[in-house]
Amino acid sequence: MAFGWIDEQARARRRAGLVRTLRPRSADAPLLDLAGNDYLGLSRHPEVTEGAAEAARRWGGGSTGSRLVTGTTELHGELECELADFCGFEAALVFSSGYAANLAAVTALAPHGSLIVSDAGNHASLIDGCRLARGTTEVVAHADPRAVRKALGTHRGPAVVVSDTVFSVDGDAAPLAGLAEAVREFDAGLIVDDAHGLGLLGAGGRGAAYAAGLAGAPDVVATVTLSKSLGSQGGAVLGPAPVIDHLVNAARTFIFDTGLAPAAVGAALAALRLLRREPERAERARTVAATLHARLTAEGHEAVRPDAAVVSVRAPSPELAVRWAADCRAAGVAVGCFRPPSVPDGISRLRLTARADLTDGQIEHAVRVIGETRP
Amino acid sequence: MAFGWIDEQARARRRAGLVRTLRPRSADAPLLDLAGNDYLGLSRHPEVTEGAAEAARRWGGGSTGSRLVTGTTELHGELECELADFCGFEAALVFSSGYAANLAAVTALAPHGSLIVSDAGNHASLIDGCRLARGTTEVVAHADPRAVRKALGTHRGPAVVVSDTVFSVDGDAAPLAGLAEAVREFDAGLIVDDAHGLGLLGAGGRGAAYAAGLAGAPDVVATVTLSKSLGSQGGAVLGPAPVIDHLVNAARTFIFDTGLAPAAVGAALAALRLLRREPERAERARTVAATLHARLTAEGHEAVRPDAAVVSVRAPSPELAVRWAADCRAAGVAVGCFRPPSVPDGISRLRLTARADLTDGQIEHAVRVIGETRP
Ligand SMILES: Cc1ncc(COP(=O)(O)O)c(C=O)c1O
Ligand SMILES: Cc1ncc(COP(=O)(O)O)c(C=O)c1O
Repeated sequence: MAFGWIDEQARARRRAGLVRTLRPRSADAPLLDLAGNDYLGLSRHPEVTEGAAEAARRWGGGSTGSRLVTGTTELHGELECELADFCGFEAALVFSSGYAANLAAVTALAPHGSLIVSDAGNHASLIDGCRLARGTTEVVAHADPRAVRKALGTHRGPAVVVSDTVFSVDGDAAPLAGLAEAVREFDAGLIVDDAHGLGLLGAGGRGAAYAAGLAGAPDVVATVTLSKSLGSQGGAVLGPAPVIDHLVNAARTFIFDTGLAPAAVGAALAALRLLRREPERAERARTVAATLHARLTAEGHEAVRPDAAVVSVRAPSPELAVRWAADCRAAGVAVGCFRPPSVPDGISRLRLTARADLTDGQIEHAVRVIGETRP
Repeated sequence: MAFGWIDEQARARRRAGLVRTLRPRSADAPLLDLAGNDYLGLSRHPEVTEGAAEAARRWGGGSTGSRLVTGTTELHGELECELADFCGFEAALVFSSGYAANLAAVTALAPHGSLIVSDAGNHASLIDGCRLARGTTEVVAHADPRAVRKALGTHRGPAVVVSDTVFSVDGDAAPLAGLAEAVREFDAGLIVDDAHGLGLLGAGGRGAAYAAGLAGAPDVVATVTLSKSLGSQGGAVLGPAPVIDHLVNAARTFIFDTGLAPAAVGAALAALRLLRREPERAERARTVAATLHARLTAEGHEAVRPDAAVVSVRAPSPELAVRWAADCRAAGVAVGCFRPPSVPDGISRLRLTARADLTDGQIEHAVRVIGETRP
């Protein structure tokens, strides 16, 4: 049987308690959501959903082609201008996903003969970017500028350092200042994935690069997703105009992919404008995360101090993590559950996400449920 | 300068006349569109745009997380059921893009030690899938089942054959029956990318695998995009239920990517239902393509006979292809222009796409403009 080998893998997964299944949710699920990445609570904001609806009506259900053929609408151009301006970069390029944006940035900026220095905790999409790129990848210890320096010191020719700004599993921040110093010492470039920083870090949520004073620098490129704080779908690369032009000409996930759907562009644009108008949402989400963390550790949970909105709580084992998450859900609280092989260090966790629109009462309720269901 | 090497590449591109730039279009561009992939003319159909709008209002601007966390709505489930049923497969899995669906199918079905036999004319996303996969890739001559057989004969262990069903550049069809025979001789799997077949080939547009009697077979997996005939955004993998379960557990672009935005799901679902109700759209698009081809060759153009809706016309050089396309555009007709490095064989072309809703008058007009602007 052609795909017979799959059955053996499926059995092994069952034995290890690592089977993943999809659980469709209804539109008005009564669960308290601490699992999604809608950090600012904008995904269901009427201005955002109306932005999506209006864009679909005006521009169509899809963008109909590659951005280089028919897939670039004036709406895409507007979003790119406003996003670059908000985050403090010269130019921006929108992709169909954050995943595609990361593949593009890494592959197009790490040509044959170049070195990619990649943090061991980086997101899967950056790792896939490294694997697709023509350059050689050296994976370095997590959040360690000294290790980055050492890797850069062994190489001649173009080099880039690649890092999440806020790591998706534990929610800890990268040492951006140290990374910037390192790349400058060696004339390398810096690519940072701000998926979990945009909308949360920096003045009014302008992102981690902005917060670190790196936005707009000629040697810094940031990627973002439109699917978390901006409550939509899609991704973007932000950087100097020549870098963006280079991506237009060289990035395969840009050239050979249909442009982002107008509705997603419209939703992201509406969310971005909301965030400009209500910058306090960024701080509120961080405060919620800090409160969650403080309350959970006060109750004896082992949780990493959040640098943005992700609060990661250790679980004793993959099986118990799954049961814990299921018990939380049964008690009305949706939490994420990260376990092997999705976690580089093999440690299973509950992954909680703060949202700007969580009330103090909801936070208390969540902490109580998490405590009561603790395995 | 960190990214200084980019400037040299930009200069080389300018010298070679290969610079790509974005041209944002307005919502009511007066151009006759023979460049987009909206083959059935559904992208701006009121039911489709209302499907998008309604889904955004009901479910939000984004899906808020990975399909495994919060990113699966009941709407995603509905689309997966109806798509699998329509195309004749047991199960389906929706992705944020066709690109992501292809990366998933190839990487998850070509493990370490396996062989991937890949057609030389395959789409960039399949090629990237081959490069990301742990298996070994052998690229074989275009549309050549004998070459596929030869490659399979050299390998022991799991193997997959990977091919577009309709090739995106020339619009020619793959020899699916011959490929199926080859994989069955060697107990290999077949992955076909039906991006340009869905909505056009097979009874009522059920796709190339359906047309070839391969839909639902235990050794056949098809990928589709929601961004062409279905006028939306996104992609899907169709196949036996165990294969789909395997993707849920193993495909990185599924596990680590935010789910497709509800608006895109809603638009694709509306388009699919329209196509079921109006199956004649599929045939009309093919008739338009055949007419375009007949009229163009009658006028002395060198064009490949279309097997679906893409009509490819040879241009003398990249520079003249660009000028030709620009002159068409200036005369009110938008056409695609494919040139190196996007074409594997280095031949530049005008790429025309048929649409079910083009009138005979519009076809005549397009043929006249293409003739008058011929370099
Ligand atoms: C750090 C990081 N980068 C990139 C992505 C991919 O972004 P998207 O889901 O918009 O494709 C994600 C999550 O999905 C992420 O957590
Ligand atoms: C043959 C083929 N496969 C896959 C894709 C990617 O699909 P999507 O644009 O929906 O990501 C395309 C075009 O974009 C294509 O032409």
